[in-house]
Amino acid sequence: MLGSDYKGQNCSVARTLELVGERWTILVLRDVFLGRRRFDQIQQSLGVARNVLAARLDRLVGEGILEKVPYQERPVRHEYRLTAKGVDLWPVTVELLRWGDRYTAPDAGPPIVLRHKGCGGELGERRVCMRCGESLQASDVRAEPGPGAGAVVGVRRSARESRSARPAAA
Amino acid sequence: MLGSDYKGQNCSVARTLELVGERWTILVLRDVFLGRRRFDQIQQSLGVARNVLAARLDRLVGEGILEKVPYQERPVRHEYRLTAKGVDLWPVTVELLRWGDRYTAPDAGPPIVLRHKGCGGELGERRVCMRCGESLQASDVRAEPGPGAGAVVGVRRSARESRSARPAAA
Repeated sequence: MLGSDYKGQNCSVARTLELVGERWTILVLRDVFLGRRRFDQIQQSLGVARNVLAARLDRLVGEGILEKVPYQERPVRHEYRLTAKGVDLWPVTVELLRWGDRYTAPDAGPPIVLRHKGCGGELGERRVCMRCGESLQASDVRAEPGPGAGAVVGVRRSARESRSARPAAA
Repeated sequence: MLGSDYKGQNCSVARTLELVGERWTILVLRDVFLGRRRFDQIQQSLGVARNVLAARLDRLVGEGILEKVPYQERPVRHEYRLTAKGVDLWPVTVELLRWGDRYTAPDAGPPIVLRHKGCGGELGERRVCMRCGESLQASDVRAEPGPGAGAVVGVRRSARESRSARPAAA
């Protein structure tokens, strides 16, 4: 846990970041929100070292944000599901997404679009459906590839570093 | 920038985290939202090494999230202000705060409370005023010490490590 806590900060922002502010953690949660629940799915999606991913998942389970549930008996295999405490991090993830859509998305547009399952409207400001005006929860939306889904990865920030184009894994 | 980017991720969450996901960055922004605009104020509030803080501030200025504005001429001294792009990170900060209030606050309650300047109501879910129902923006709220403002720092997570009690600097 070295370097992940903020001593002397009596602050709910700091305490939240102590739990989910480590590198990769929010992207692990994003993947679980998008339906990737198994270690190998998340590992493939992120391309992160297995030991790092294992450490992040263990921490999230330990903090009660994810739970590890068997989905197969012989051999026993587990998947990761969000607890209620984990689902409550959805607003954080959505606001990060919306800011990124506004300021960092490829010219083509956002890589993914969140839609209200009920009416097909896009999720808008304050997580309200832009079509029907309903206040949306995590379970009310589905993620779809957006107009920027096929954009070259890193087109904006790391074009020099990135040599491979890959479609959004949404 | 070592270790702050997420190669291969065509994702607005990942891109946002590339800009604000480094250790301390969100807390720097929190401080500016709370009105701490000068290097020394922020450094005192966070207790972070000066070179680390300088690097974070430079990055935020470089990304157009903060701007460096002179407030004094002889000698020239600067303060940091949020740009419109920076103000748009308020929802991210608020959702981190709200989750932390719910799951990590001291027994006494949240260290700070955000109130609608207009009517004094508390900021609630989706950044709506719990009293008058107005949808609130960053400039509509003020931060006040909450019931947990005087809680011993680290009472929940790092009681063993923290020896000093300090009131919330809100």
